[in-house]
Amino acid sequence: MKVLVINCGSSSLKYQLMNPETKEVFAKGLCERIGIEGSRMEYEIPAKDFEIEIKQAMPTHKEALELVINAITDKEHGVIASVEEVEAIGHRVVHGGETFAKSVLLTEEVMKAIEENNELAPLHNPANLMGVRTCMSLMPGKPNVAVFDTAFHQTMPAKAFMYALPYEDYTELKVRKYGFHGTSHLFVSETMREIMGNPAHSKIIVCHLGNGASVSAVLDGKSVDTSMGLTPLQGLMMGTRCGDIDPAAVLFIKNKRGLSDKEMDNRLNKQSGILGIYGKSSDCRDMENGVAEGDQRAILAEQMFIYKIKSYIGAYAAAMGGVDAICFAGGIGENAAGVREAVIDGLDFLGAKLDKEVNSVRKKGNVKLSTEDSKVLIYKIPTNEELVIARDTYRIVTGK
Amino acid sequence: MKVLVINCGSSSLKYQLMNPETKEVFAKGLCERIGIEGSRMEYEIPAKDFEIEIKQAMPTHKEALELVINAITDKEHGVIASVEEVEAIGHRVVHGGETFAKSVLLTEEVMKAIEENNELAPLHNPANLMGVRTCMSLMPGKPNVAVFDTAFHQTMPAKAFMYALPYEDYTELKVRKYGFHGTSHLFVSETMREIMGNPAHSKIIVCHLGNGASVSAVLDGKSVDTSMGLTPLQGLMMGTRCGDIDPAAVLFIKNKRGLSDKEMDNRLNKQSGILGIYGKSSDCRDMENGVAEGDQRAILAEQMFIYKIKSYIGAYAAAMGGVDAICFAGGIGENAAGVREAVIDGLDFLGAKLDKEVNSVRKKGNVKLSTEDSKVLIYKIPTNEELVIARDTYRIVTGK
Repeated sequence: MKVLVINCGSSSLKYQLMNPETKEVFAKGLCERIGIEGSRMEYEIPAKDFEIEIKQAMPTHKEALELVINAITDKEHGVIASVEEVEAIGHRVVHGGETFAKSVLLTEEVMKAIEENNELAPLHNPANLMGVRTCMSLMPGKPNVAVFDTAFHQTMPAKAFMYALPYEDYTELKVRKYGFHGTSHLFVSETMREIMGNPAHSKIIVCHLGNGASVSAVLDGKSVDTSMGLTPLQGLMMGTRCGDIDPAAVLFIKNKRGLSDKEMDNRLNKQSGILGIYGKSSDCRDMENGVAEGDQRAILAEQMFIYKIKSYIGAYAAAMGGVDAICFAGGIGENAAGVREAVIDGLDFLGAKLDKEVNSVRKKGNVKLSTEDSKVLIYKIPTNEELVIARDTYRIVTGK
Repeated sequence: MKVLVINCGSSSLKYQLMNPETKEVFAKGLCERIGIEGSRMEYEIPAKDFEIEIKQAMPTHKEALELVINAITDKEHGVIASVEEVEAIGHRVVHGGETFAKSVLLTEEVMKAIEENNELAPLHNPANLMGVRTCMSLMPGKPNVAVFDTAFHQTMPAKAFMYALPYEDYTELKVRKYGFHGTSHLFVSETMREIMGNPAHSKIIVCHLGNGASVSAVLDGKSVDTSMGLTPLQGLMMGTRCGDIDPAAVLFIKNKRGLSDKEMDNRLNKQSGILGIYGKSSDCRDMENGVAEGDQRAILAEQMFIYKIKSYIGAYAAAMGGVDAICFAGGIGENAAGVREAVIDGLDFLGAKLDKEVNSVRKKGNVKLSTEDSKVLIYKIPTNEELVIARDTYRIVTGK
């Protein structure tokens, strides 16, 4: 079984050809700067440690996907003889709204329903759908499956997903908390449950910390709360997103600075977060370097970043009546030992004790970071969203 | 020592004449609908169980204050022989910005500095200052003291008060978390510390739950975080305020509904919260009645209201590395036993156990609500903001 996993952004296309049963990745890579000068593709065969970069014009996603197909079927460096070997294509789709609580086979009807959620994710959903249509036209007859970033969080109870706004903002405008990074929160919490021996009851907090970042509360395998909201802006402090602020500050700043709504939205999403406070970069590693150099604003940014994660862990422990396991995933969660240590510091009252030595050693795979006498398990679990997409695609296409 | 405590709103004036040393309240009441048809004054002498209502036109706060002075010095129903007996006047001022971390004697210079924070509290500060000027003109020569709602929270560390916005929104526009209800959080946490025997270290969470509502984390007597923000809109779900939402929802709803910034601000502050979800009333008691009748939206509103308080308790326990005491104050916190029970339910992991029987009995004064074996003290502590204002006024005027 070979499944092609596609994640289309407005000017990018990430791909991975894999076997969802064996988890083997045959080839993977990405196309960047589609429709922009300087388009490039990365192509990698993990088994052979083979990597190439191809610089070639890609005016649209069609040319990008053609390049991907050419690469994976290339006589010399390909991994399959023909595109016929691709049995199904799985697509990451950002916003499924309340329509999609599960992955789904893509039909014209389903695509229309996804389009109806476009305005909830105006940057992402149209790009995701473009990826689907491109695959349908270049690989006709292959089943395409949509896997939604929001689906895992559809189990949240109303007390967690509703905003205390006029009720008709929910019924008429669909304004509510949806949450994102669902495939990651699902993968990490499922992995954690397996490690725990699949108990009937479990209280797991997943910290997915990357350039975008969110925390979720997973009770007995179901998401019961998450920090992102209607959009990915809410919650934690992120690379360039502000996370939680006083909603009144939005209009206050907009008026004081004479910004348009669009400029204000851009300010909150692209100029805030680590970038806004640190000033020099949105990258957590740069911020950590700044901290090492004694940069005061880097130090402040780091403290804020950590404080917010810690607060959410406390809030979600309260939401679930305690916590059995805390998991770290995402680029920062998997690699920034200092962030993990600072987040767990002071959480003894929850029963969480970090083994600082183990935490400080970089090790691949799932790593237990808690001490033997810690009541709360603490784990680093590398996320694998592509595997979730490939597995769901396999399940839906084969019915297994 | 007799101190007159004044709390001026745009169309109201609350007053209380009291002795800050003995806590005796000689007279108290309020003037409502100042400048509006149907102005009325309430006047009460607690010691005599005497209450009257006076309906009389009050075109401005000057006429209102004149009525108050007439009432307290009235030959028949007055409590003092002449206004000369009033030794000082203490004013509630909502927003002290970063300028005022403590109460202060009102001078022209101080009033100018308060005016500089007007745009942070455009509805409140100008009204508060009008009250000061009216007192200065009608009771010339008396010392006036300003006691700020924000002052107690000025001890918050930067990691708690900064928003992850572009840094210049803080330096240029003063956008940060200030917090409110400071006199109440101070009074309740000080009372709690006294009950605990004034230990050197204490971790107290104060839930001030009224029509406006906020939670604070008080570490060793100092506020280290609170749920309200730049304005009183942030944080908990309130009577008509939305509390925490995705900041992106502000612009989303505004655009979808074609609202002006002012209309949107009004929607978030006046049409949301309990009113927005329940739909029929902003009053917690009405909501509770709705719950009793099985009204689905009342039930949802109550669940949301409680869930949010519980989340903040968890977040603030994480912020302080645990919690020694949880205190309930404000109209809802002091009276709604069901709300208290639901908030504490599931917080066993923190060591908090409620004595449900004691909790359900209405009793005056400070009441211990936790069981004997509860690690966390749970108390109902009636707040007394007027006493804090009178005491600070006394302290500043006498230097004691």
